[in-house]
Formats: sequence, structure tokens, C-alpha cells
Amino acid sequence: MSDQITVAIDAMGGDNAPSAPVEGAVLAARNTQTRILLVGDKDPVEAELNKHDTEGLQISVIGSEGKIEDSEAPALALRQKPRSSVLVATGLVKAGTADAVISMGSTGGSMAAAVVILGTIKGIERPAIGGPIVGSAPNQTILDLGSNIDCKPTQLLGFGILGSVFSKVLLNINDPKIGVLSVGSEQSKGNALTKEASSLFSKSGLNFIGNVEGNDLVKGIADVVVCDGFVGNVLLKLVEGIGTELGLQLQAALSDKMPPEDLKKLVQELHSKNNVVDSRGGGPVFGVNGVSIVGHGSASPATFDRSVSLARMCIETRLIEEMNEQVPRVMALASD
Amino acid sequence: MSDQITVAIDAMGGDNAPSAPVEGAVLAARNTQTRILLVGDKDPVEAELNKHDTEGLQISVIGSEGKIEDSEAPALALRQKPRSSVLVATGLVKAGTADAVISMGSTGGSMAAAVVILGTIKGIERPAIGGPIVGSAPNQTILDLGSNIDCKPTQLLGFGILGSVFSKVLLNINDPKIGVLSVGSEQSKGNALTKEASSLFSKSGLNFIGNVEGNDLVKGIADVVVCDGFVGNVLLKLVEGIGTELGLQLQAALSDKMPPEDLKKLVQELHSKNNVVDSRGGGPVFGVNGVSIVGHGSASPATFDRSVSLARMCIETRLIEEMNEQVPRVMALASD
Repeated sequence: MSDQITVAIDAMGGDNAPSAPVEGAVLAARNTQTRILLVGDKDPVEAELNKHDTEGLQISVIGSEGKIEDSEAPALALRQKPRSSVLVATGLVKAGTADAVISMGSTGGSMAAAVVILGTIKGIERPAIGGPIVGSAPNQTILDLGSNIDCKPTQLLGFGILGSVFSKVLLNINDPKIGVLSVGSEQSKGNALTKEASSLFSKSGLNFIGNVEGNDLVKGIADVVVCDGFVGNVLLKLVEGIGTELGLQLQAALSDKMPPEDLKKLVQELHSKNNVVDSRGGGPVFGVNGVSIVGHGSASPATFDRSVSLARMCIETRLIEEMNEQVPRVMALASD
Repeated sequence: MSDQITVAIDAMGGDNAPSAPVEGAVLAARNTQTRILLVGDKDPVEAELNKHDTEGLQISVIGSEGKIEDSEAPALALRQKPRSSVLVATGLVKAGTADAVISMGSTGGSMAAAVVILGTIKGIERPAIGGPIVGSAPNQTILDLGSNIDCKPTQLLGFGILGSVFSKVLLNINDPKIGVLSVGSEQSKGNALTKEASSLFSKSGLNFIGNVEGNDLVKGIADVVVCDGFVGNVLLKLVEGIGTELGLQLQAALSDKMPPEDLKKLVQELHSKNNVVDSRGGGPVFGVNGVSIVGHGSASPATFDRSVSLARMCIETRLIEEMNEQVPRVMALASD
């Protein structure tokens, strides 16, 4: 592998595919000199690509057949559609043809493809989704956000290690503070899962700061917050819902007090502050043995471009190598 | 018992005790002709009461000794302080001297006192705290909000029945819609707890609408939403935190665009819309066999006054009698 970074993009994934992924690929290839492999049904993807000036850009189209829909059960869809775009794109990473894969299609499908094809990091059974959810703490990584609904304490420990490596390597946070999301700051507060997880973290050698509460998420007290995917997903969706509702309330309260353009700008500004998931775009699948970036189906071309930059950073910082080193080491410490 | 309603108020409970509870008692006695028994250390409570014009009001002081602090473990405190204000006040309900008790002191202490002295409704093991948490759905009752951290499916069923009775008799909602808080609208989505609870609800004869998600809370899709107290408490605190943060963001974004008084009013308006717990004040302890109202320690005199009105409504609508009838009946149906 040379210094040239190659990223495979699932050109069929997302609400606006193939136009958004193709346009995003063109942006990324131009902005970062990345080599892009667009994976999708050849005719529509090439037709889309022909709308752009790709002179001097390294973009190729790799043919695949069909896509995994949001409505499909991922495990079944993988078997039924072995040539679907996300499987072919992920396979390029496994084969060493690409260094990373990006898909804004079915998140379950992307994660399942990553697990089956790339495998998981030693010590991690199932991957997680993580990222910031509150705008006031944009560099806080909360995981899991919905992939692991019923969790064991060791899974929470795994999330903490993965999040900690991510914070350190990607976000440049020195010795990231890790908190367990719970219902009181005292160590005695929590449910059976969080209490056992806390006891593991306290032996982990990580910078464990104990329990954090719902309001602490807003303040960003911890750099990494672990919770089961049930709690994380409910929180994520609640914050999204509040952000939308808040925009409506502001519109109503201020419509006769500000010029429409100012109000629109204010609402957008507060919305993007409070909906970091929307604004940021893609995030890595935590725990798989390779760089796989997923995101909202609503991803715009700019989101694809940002995701390529994120993929590049994951590769350049050797995120996966660091995770492979840290997870087994810390898990061994915590299980002593 | 005549038509005259008597309410015992823990005059030592809350951050501003005894002044706030005493002033609230005076307001309530004047506004609603309620007979108020102020329970607390006699000297300070009487001194406080003497600051007010109580001519024609039915307010008496009942002596007690000390109070249960927020920092104390409730069960232990009950044994060590048998003459503390909340225990004496709750005892007045058991004795039939008062029809309801109100305390803004340690919520754990108030709940423990209610359980020990008044007992629970048949079929309910431990009481719950419930109420709205999102301003856009002020009549949505979410429970549990933090008393029952690790829950069994039958407990969630119990919360649903209690919430349903409350919605119907107190909030005048005909055939309240009940939802289980989960991570997807499909029945297959959820954790082990919510899936089992859903199967109980579907046999309950209640108006069960299935899963609701985080963003559905904002829309108020269900009238009653059940979750374990871990999830409920994290949500409650997150929403409080977001409300506070939002105020700061608005201040910053609008300080040069609006007159300071208008901005202050806007922030307060949005704050009260989004912090219903603060604005509403007290709520009943769900599941105890008597009317016990608890609330934030920061309760103002107006909150005490509103809590007396709530207590009166609970009594006049025969809330507890209805709960005693419905809980065993619906639980029998659901366990068939």
C-alpha cells in the first residue's frame, strides 16, 4: 500500500443515491486527492458521474447488483444479496483494494457487512455506533447509540475502550475521561449493568470518572460516555425530537419580533448546534476490524465529502491498529 | 369524614422550608378553603406562620422532630427519626386525620414513608414517580422517572395501569393511549424488558398503542409512557440540562438583537415550556395506598398551593379507590 488512500463509497446507499454519493465522491476526490471507488449499479452510477467534471480526479466505478434496503433484516439480506453494493464495497477493504468503506444505506446492513467481511476487534463481540448527541458537547463520544440493545457489563467496557482510543487518536483528547451513564453521581447509584460495568472500569487503568447523569451529557463532563444501545437510542431520538420542536417554538415566539431571514438563520444555527448527528454526518462503526463509516440516509454530498476526510483520518492515525492493541490489553487488566 | 378536605404539609421539606411551605399553606387555605395541617418543628413553623395574616383560615401546626435529609438513606432514616416531619405528616393520613400529605423534602424519604405507613396498592410492589418531561406534551404521563431502577415486566404493566387511571380521572383523558418506550416502532424492537411488557399490555384490555420512541415523547403520541426508572431518570435530567443550555444559547444568539426585557421573557417562556417538571411542581407518588404528593426541593409557595389543589383533585376524583379497583383487575387480565 502506497501513501495514496483509496476509499470505497456505496453509491446506492442513502435517500439521495446515487446522486449524493457520486457528487460527494467528486468533492472528496477534488478536495483531498483521495482515490474513490464508487460501488453500485453500473449504468445509473456512471450516468450520474458523467454529469460532473472529473478531469484529473481518481474515481472509478465498480459494478454491484442492488442494495440492502432499510426495511430488510440485515443478516438475511446479506445472504440473499451477496452482490449488493455495501457487500461489494466492504469486500474491497477486506481484499486490500480499498482502505475504508463509506455507506449511508441501511446502518444495520452496513454493520452486518462489516462484521461478516472484516470481522471484529479481538474482545469485541458486536460493533457499536457512537458519536456526540448534544450540540453543547460536540466532541463527546457516546456509545452505544442503538446497535446493542441488551448489553453485558463487558460490552460497556468494550465501548469505553473503543471510545477512548477514538477520542485520543481522532479527536486529540489526551487521556480521555470516561463516564458510565447512570442515575446519580454516587458509585452506589445505577442499575445492575452499570454497577458491574463501573467495577470493570475502575480496574481498567483508563481515566474513569465514575457515573455521569443526563444533564452531565449537556455539559460534556466526560469525553466518552458508555450506555447500552437501548438507552443511547432513546436519548438520541429524544434530542433530535427536541431540536425539531424547539425550531417550531422559536418560529412561533419570534415571528413578529425579527425579520424572517434573521429568524431562519437563528433557527438553523440553533438546530445545527443541537443536532450534531445531522450536522456531522458519518461516524465509524466501532469495533470492526477495518474502517467502515456509516451515517444518516439523508446525507448530502458535503456529508459524503466529510466522511471521506474522516475515513482518511482513521487510516492516517492508525485507529484500527490502536484499537486492536488497546482492547485486549485493557480487557485483560479489567478482568483481573 | 365530612366534605371538608384536610391536607398535611411537611413544613420542613424543601430547600426553602419552613418559609415556602408555610406561605404556600396560607395561599392554599385562602384559595381553596382547605384545612391545612403544617407538620414540623413547632417553634420555627409557628414563627413563620405568625408572619402571615391567617384570619379565617384553617391552619394548624402539628409538632414533629427533625427532618429526613436528601443525603440520608431513606429506609435507615425512617427508623432513626420516627418523629420526623414526613413520617408524622404521612401518619396523619393513615390515621384519617388528613386526606393527603404533601412533602417537597427528600423524595426517597417521602416515598419510603408512604410505603411503610400507607402501604401499596394491591399488585404494586414499589411505588413510582411520573409526570410529563417534555414541554410540548404537558399532559403526557411518563413513568417511572427514577424510583425503580431495575424493573420486571409486571412493574412496567403496573406503571401503565396507574398512569392510565391518573390520565383518565385527573387529566380527563378518555381511554388514555399507553405506549412502551423503546427503540423502534415495530413490535420486534426493544430490549428483553420492553418486549415482555408489551406482550402483557397487549392482553391488558388497556388502550395499548405499542412502542413509542424518543422523538415520539416530544410529539405526545401516547398519553402514558412506561419505562424503567433508569431510562426515565436519564431522560428527565437530560431534558432539564438541555432546557438550561438552550437558555444560554438563546441569550448569546439574541443579546444584540432584542431588548434585554424581551429576551428575558422569551427565555423564561421557552424554559417553562421545556421544563414542565419545574413549572408544574408536585406530582403524586404512584402506587401507594393514599394521596402523597412529592416534588422538587426548590418548590415555591405557589408550587405548594398548586400541590394542594392537585391533592384535592386526587381526593375528589377518588383516584386511589379507582387505582385499587383497576390494578388487580387489569393485572389478572394480562397474566391470563
